[in-house]
Amino acid sequence: MVNNVWDLEIIPVAVETQDFASLQNRKNMNDHNQKIAEIINIGDELLAGHTVNTNATWMSKELKNIGVKVIKHVVIADEKEAIIKALDQVEKATDYIFITGGLGPTEDDRTKAVITSYFGGNLVFSEEAYKWVEEFFKKRGRIPSERNKGQAVIPDNAERIINKMGTASGMIFRKDEKSFFVMPGVPYEMQNMMTESILPELSKYSKVLNTELQINTFGLPESEIADRIMAVMPDIEKELSIGYYPSVKGITLRLGGSDKLKVEEAQMKIQELLGDSVYSLLDESMAEIVVNLCKDKGLIITVAESCTGGAIADMITNISGSSSVFKEGFIVYSNEAKIRSLGVDPHILDKYGAVSAETVEAMVKGLKNKTGADIAIGVSGIAGPDGATPGKPVGLIYLAIAYKEKIHIQKLDFNRGRKKNKEYAARAALNRVRLTLIDDE
Amino acid sequence: MVNNVWDLEIIPVAVETQDFASLQNRKNMNDHNQKIAEIINIGDELLAGHTVNTNATWMSKELKNIGVKVIKHVVIADEKEAIIKALDQVEKATDYIFITGGLGPTEDDRTKAVITSYFGGNLVFSEEAYKWVEEFFKKRGRIPSERNKGQAVIPDNAERIINKMGTASGMIFRKDEKSFFVMPGVPYEMQNMMTESILPELSKYSKVLNTELQINTFGLPESEIADRIMAVMPDIEKELSIGYYPSVKGITLRLGGSDKLKVEEAQMKIQELLGDSVYSLLDESMAEIVVNLCKDKGLIITVAESCTGGAIADMITNISGSSSVFKEGFIVYSNEAKIRSLGVDPHILDKYGAVSAETVEAMVKGLKNKTGADIAIGVSGIAGPDGATPGKPVGLIYLAIAYKEKIHIQKLDFNRGRKKNKEYAARAALNRVRLTLIDDE
Repeated sequence: MVNNVWDLEIIPVAVETQDFASLQNRKNMNDHNQKIAEIINIGDELLAGHTVNTNATWMSKELKNIGVKVIKHVVIADEKEAIIKALDQVEKATDYIFITGGLGPTEDDRTKAVITSYFGGNLVFSEEAYKWVEEFFKKRGRIPSERNKGQAVIPDNAERIINKMGTASGMIFRKDEKSFFVMPGVPYEMQNMMTESILPELSKYSKVLNTELQINTFGLPESEIADRIMAVMPDIEKELSIGYYPSVKGITLRLGGSDKLKVEEAQMKIQELLGDSVYSLLDESMAEIVVNLCKDKGLIITVAESCTGGAIADMITNISGSSSVFKEGFIVYSNEAKIRSLGVDPHILDKYGAVSAETVEAMVKGLKNKTGADIAIGVSGIAGPDGATPGKPVGLIYLAIAYKEKIHIQKLDFNRGRKKNKEYAARAALNRVRLTLIDDE
Repeated sequence: MVNNVWDLEIIPVAVETQDFASLQNRKNMNDHNQKIAEIINIGDELLAGHTVNTNATWMSKELKNIGVKVIKHVVIADEKEAIIKALDQVEKATDYIFITGGLGPTEDDRTKAVITSYFGGNLVFSEEAYKWVEEFFKKRGRIPSERNKGQAVIPDNAERIINKMGTASGMIFRKDEKSFFVMPGVPYEMQNMMTESILPELSKYSKVLNTELQINTFGLPESEIADRIMAVMPDIEKELSIGYYPSVKGITLRLGGSDKLKVEEAQMKIQELLGDSVYSLLDESMAEIVVNLCKDKGLIITVAESCTGGAIADMITNISGSSSVFKEGFIVYSNEAKIRSLGVDPHILDKYGAVSAETVEAMVKGLKNKTGADIAIGVSGIAGPDGATPGKPVGLIYLAIAYKEKIHIQKLDFNRGRKKNKEYAARAALNRVRLTLIDDE
C-alpha cells in the first residue's frame, strides 16, 4: 500500500469541505499520544440476532494493529433518535468514531440523512459521485436505476471515501477535533475502505505502544498449558498480561506488555515449554503452515476425505498459491467410492468398517499410489448426529498420513456437533502433516 | 422446560434480597406491553478484536423469540469507570439489562465488585454458594482451589442464578423497575442460565407482538429486488417493516409487522414477484435445499471442483444426512487431475484453457460417466489473487451442471477476494442445481 492512497481516494464534494491535508497540522493529529476510538454499528439485523457483528471485531483488530485503542462498541437500530443519542454519547477523549451500516440503496437506511443533519449539513446530488456509480455499473455490464441514483446523493459537509466494492460512498465528518468515519455495513465494502484509505492514513498519527505477541497451539489442553507455564514462570502474570483463548483452532495464548523485550522473551520461553504443539507465532492458519512446509520441501500433498467431506481440501485451497503443492483430492463418502477411486480392499471395509485404522491406512496407501503425491492424508469418521454404532460413537474419527515409507495413524474422539467435528478433524489432520514434516527435518 | 424452574434456580443470599415472586405484582411485570432490553458485554478480548461477540447475537435472537425487543448492544472494557458509565447510560424505557463477562476466577475481572457497589451492596462470602462450587468440583473429581473460593463471594443485594456449567454465579439486581441480569461471558454458561432460568421466567411477562418472516434470494441485485417490489407494492413500507440483507449467500428480505396476515400476504406476493430467485422462506442453507431436492427426487449428486477446491463438497457434507445423495467428489486442481480423474480431453485444455465453458462441459461429462451420478457439478475458474491472464481476470469462473441429457453452463464474474470468490462460486453452482431441478418439475 502506498502512502498517498488517501489523497487519491478522498474527493471533496463541496467548497466547505476540508481536505485531509489541512488536518495534518492539528495538534491532535500530529502528536503520538495513543488515539482512542469507538465503533458504532447501525443495523436492526444485529439487534434482532440475525447477523453477528463481525464488523466491530474486524475493525477493532485492525485499529489495534496500528496502535489505536478501541474503548467501546455500540450497536443501535437504524432510527433517528438512537443514532443521535449514540453520537451524543461519544466519549470526550475519543479521537475517531467508526460508524457502519445504513448506507444501502433501499429505503430502510436512514443513517446518511440523520448523520448529515447532525453535523449541520445537507444532502446534495454529486455529479462526481454519480459518475462513480455509473462507472461501477458499467464495469458489470449494467445501467444504474433511479434507485441507485440515490447513492450519488451525499453530504455537503463531509469528505467522500471511494467505495471500490459498491456504490455507497463512505463519508468523513469532523467535529470537536474528532473524526467520524461513516461506512456501509457490508463487510467487504467497509474492509476495503478501511484497508485502502483509512488505516494507512491513521497509522501516520498513531504508534503501537504495547507489544502483543501470540502463541498458537494445537493439541494441548488449556490447563496443561497453564500448568507448564506456571511451573517455570510463576510471576509471569505480575509482569505481563497473559490470556488463553481456546477454540476449534486450538488454544491461542496472547502476551502483552509495555516492555517489548520482556514480551518477546516470554514468548520464546513459552514456545520452548510447549514444544511442537506450537504451530505458529503469527496469524497464519494451520493450512498456511502446511502449504508453506510443502513448498519449502518441494512436496506434493493430496487428500482422501470421507467424514470431512472436502473441508481439508477447502482449507488448503483457501491458501493463495496452494496450487503449487496441491493438485488433486478425492472425496470418498461411500464405501464404493473408497474402493473405486482409491482401490481400498472391500474386505478391509467389511472386516473393520469404514471408520477404522485399517481403512484409513488403506485409503492413504491407495491415494499415494494413484496420485504419486509425496504426502497423502486420509480421514474417515462419524461426523454425526447420526451414524453412531455400538463402540463407534459420534465424533470418532481416524486419520492417516502417509509420507515416505511411513504411515502415521491417529484416533480422535471429539464431539461438538457435525460442523465442528468436521472442522476439528480437518485441523487435526493438517496438524499431523505438520508434525510429520518437522519430525523429518 | 418446566414453569417453576425459576423458583428452583434463584436462591436468596441475604435478608434484604427480594425473591422474584414479589416482583410479579409490580405493574411493569404484569402487563404485556412490549418489554425493552439492552445488552452490555464486558470484555477486553472483544474490544481487541480477538473474539467475535456471539453472546450479544445469541441473546438478541432468544429475547426476540419471546417478544422482548433489544434496542442496544454495548461492549466495554473490564474497567470500573466504563462499567459505571454504561450502567448510567441505560435508557429510561429499558426493562431488562443483560450483562455478561468479568465473573471468572482470575484477577482481571472487576465486574462483580463494581456492579455490586453500583447498586449499593457489599460482597459477602456465601456458604450456600460455596457448597455449590464444591459440589461442582466434586462431580468432576476435583477440589476447589483458593482461587475458586472467590466464586462463592457474592453480592448481598442480588439474587443468585445457579450456574450449572461453571462455578461463577449469575446475579439479578433490581433498580427503578429495571432488572439487571449479570452472567459470565463463557457462551455455554450464559446460554444455560438464559434458557433454563431467565428466558422461561421472562416469557411470562412478554408476548410476541410482531410477526417476522424472511425471503431468501440468490442471483438478483438488491436494487432490482427493491424496484420489483416497489412497482407493485408502493405502500409496503407504510404498513410493514422491510429490510434487505445482502451477503455472499444472496439477499435476505425480512418483513415484519403486527398484523400477521398482512405479513404473510406480503411474503407470498414478494415470493411471486421474485420468482425462482427465491430459494427459501426459512433458515435453510442453499446446500440444505439442494440436498433435500435430491432426496425428494431420489437423485445422486457429485462434484468436480477446480477453483472451489472442495468448498461445494464441504457445504453439501455439512448437511446431516447428505450421505444418502452424495457419495463422492473430485478435486481436480491441476490439468493432469482433470485428464486422469475425469477423462477431460487434453486438446480441450490446450485449446480453450482450464477456465472455459468447454472445459467445465468436459468435466461434467466425464464426471457423470465415471460416477454414474444423476447430477454432476463442475467448476473451474480463477480464485485469485494470482492466475489472471489477458481476457481471464481474477473472479472469472465457469460452472456446468449436467442433468439428464442437458448441460447448463454459467459464467460468473465476481471478485471479492479468494475466499469469497470460492464461496460465491460454490453457492452459485448449488443454486444452478436448484434451478435445474425445479425447472424439471
